[in-house]
Amino acid sequence: MRILHTSDWHLGRQFHNVSLLDDQRLALEQIIGIIGSRQIDVVVVAGDIYDRSVPPAQAVELLDATVHRICDELQVPLILLAGNHDGPQRLGFASRQLSGAGLHMVGPLWSVPQPILIKGDDGEVAFYPIPYADPATVRHVHGVEVSSHEEAMAYLLDQVLQDNGPTRPCVVIAHCFLAGGEVSESERPLSIGGADQVSPEHFRPFSYAALGHLHGPQFRGAPHIRYSGSPLKYSFSEERQRKSVTLVELDAEGKAAIEQIPLQPRHNMRTLEGSLDALLAAGKDDPHRDDYLLVRLTDTHAILDVMSKLREIYPNVLHLERPGLMARGDGLEVNCDRLKKGELAMFEDFFVQVTGDPLSPEQRQIIADTLDDLHRQES
Amino acid sequence: MRILHTSDWHLGRQFHNVSLLDDQRLALEQIIGIIGSRQIDVVVVAGDIYDRSVPPAQAVELLDATVHRICDELQVPLILLAGNHDGPQRLGFASRQLSGAGLHMVGPLWSVPQPILIKGDDGEVAFYPIPYADPATVRHVHGVEVSSHEEAMAYLLDQVLQDNGPTRPCVVIAHCFLAGGEVSESERPLSIGGADQVSPEHFRPFSYAALGHLHGPQFRGAPHIRYSGSPLKYSFSEERQRKSVTLVELDAEGKAAIEQIPLQPRHNMRTLEGSLDALLAAGKDDPHRDDYLLVRLTDTHAILDVMSKLREIYPNVLHLERPGLMARGDGLEVNCDRLKKGELAMFEDFFVQVTGDPLSPEQRQIIADTLDDLHRQES
Repeated sequence: MRILHTSDWHLGRQFHNVSLLDDQRLALEQIIGIIGSRQIDVVVVAGDIYDRSVPPAQAVELLDATVHRICDELQVPLILLAGNHDGPQRLGFASRQLSGAGLHMVGPLWSVPQPILIKGDDGEVAFYPIPYADPATVRHVHGVEVSSHEEAMAYLLDQVLQDNGPTRPCVVIAHCFLAGGEVSESERPLSIGGADQVSPEHFRPFSYAALGHLHGPQFRGAPHIRYSGSPLKYSFSEERQRKSVTLVELDAEGKAAIEQIPLQPRHNMRTLEGSLDALLAAGKDDPHRDDYLLVRLTDTHAILDVMSKLREIYPNVLHLERPGLMARGDGLEVNCDRLKKGELAMFEDFFVQVTGDPLSPEQRQIIADTLDDLHRQES
Repeated sequence: MRILHTSDWHLGRQFHNVSLLDDQRLALEQIIGIIGSRQIDVVVVAGDIYDRSVPPAQAVELLDATVHRICDELQVPLILLAGNHDGPQRLGFASRQLSGAGLHMVGPLWSVPQPILIKGDDGEVAFYPIPYADPATVRHVHGVEVSSHEEAMAYLLDQVLQDNGPTRPCVVIAHCFLAGGEVSESERPLSIGGADQVSPEHFRPFSYAALGHLHGPQFRGAPHIRYSGSPLKYSFSEERQRKSVTLVELDAEGKAAIEQIPLQPRHNMRTLEGSLDALLAAGKDDPHRDDYLLVRLTDTHAILDVMSKLREIYPNVLHLERPGLMARGDGLEVNCDRLKKGELAMFEDFFVQVTGDPLSPEQRQIIADTLDDLHRQES
């Protein structure tokens, strides 16, 4: 049984006001290619299909085209799980009619476990999807007293184990935050203050746990308790992550062998650091200058229209930081005493902070005259 | 072949800030009952399934439960067409996977006609759905020069006729405004200034035209070119409409026999007119006092907290009109000269307009003193 595990597609996401839809389309193309070439038996997407509960219509169209390729053209069953970004009712619409076509849309939390049975060469495997649900929802649907994500997940996994019985190989699909997991800046916390964490130990009894939520590929507790990570980088904090999908091969005993298959981004996401001149010179020979870039300029002087200059060479500079401008300022905090000193003294402070040098007597006179002129016009 | 024709469900609609979802649920229950008891072969919903392109999650759940009842439990094919209120991409998601389950969600306009073939006792009938599309969309999808709804619909219907050929019985499903049609206040115009009208003649060649958009049941041009109307009243202008669904029986030659099957509303929508006392007295014996009401009070004097008094008897008064208060005012327009006369004179005018009587000398003195007090406090 060959399972392709992916998650956190976040279709429709924007990054610094740039639509990532074409990047997402290319990533999905690669995933579809892998499904075809690697004889996949079932595809699992472990939540956050869309970036928000009401996705843009173009994201709906992209998912529509993708499920058609996988379910109809390749005839491979596809399980899509609602994550914390998805609207479960919207995602789960007409799921009973869709399941006959091999498309399993798992929206609101079930009150009774709903296994999806997939036949492989070595027999049947049960897939138990657990859509994202906060403890309040689990309390409401199941009438049990659970007060944390930990207790809620333990309860649901116990339901699954009982439903499946002791012998049939069983894959669980969930969207949660495993304790010790490595976070990225692009994930939305499930709750405030660490109460969202779940121990990996609850997932140990299963043949494989296909997890979503964390955007970096990783496992916790054991190699078969695993996040595939997102197919794309969704923040500069993911610069050094290798994005991939996870191919899981279950043998006849339900033991999992893991392979990570890398994806090639349409635009990489990376950080450049240096002076403007050096970066512009280096960019001319950079074959990847259309990557999505965070630029950290080390220049210590003000530069006019710096974003336009950078974008002539690097069209997709998305964010600019100027650590050089702040480098000498060991007092970045606003000093209330300074604010009382008057405009000329405040400007002197500002000038020192930005340039590192004091005003020359000539400069000081020009500023003083200018301020005088302004005051005369006001009165 | 027995076709049930309905339209303009507008699931998720609010009326004067009251959710109509429970009313809609009851109407759908009745429709499901009719489908079962009248041996329906196919159900057609001719657009405006939802009230807006992004419906509330509860409306999505209601539609999900409804399609399950019709397609899975009753095993009757169901065709849902996008109207001008629907979001075509959202409504059409996964339509290719759903059609295998007998659920035909027709979202964006097709570039090639897509008939749905339904087998009846007398052979096969082709159903051609034409989702709502403005002329610009038809121009874009088909690369033809059409500048009005009339030209666009004529073009699309011609495509359908050519695709179907001369012999097979053919039902067309469309969401449009037929010239001469009787409008209600609850329809959103398709365009401004009458350019949205389509001649009924274009629909004459078909066995039946199942139309949506107008909320009152009616036919135009010929009895087989027909609006089923909405299952519920959605404005007080529909007070006198008899809401229903349309049962169409096609014989072996494709000739249509029509029956309108009435629906019973959970709350009727009607207007009450009279004095407050008379209405409150009458209401005590009114078995339908929880109807959705527009109340026109004929009292000519001001009444404190009139809505609360009415709602003690009639819990669902949704709108209040006070024609009595305005009855004597033959000059409702603001008279600029009056505004210059000062506060006391303006109040006198207002008093006359509201009560029909002039201020008594005592009343006049009280108002004058009050105004003086206010002016003294201000200065």
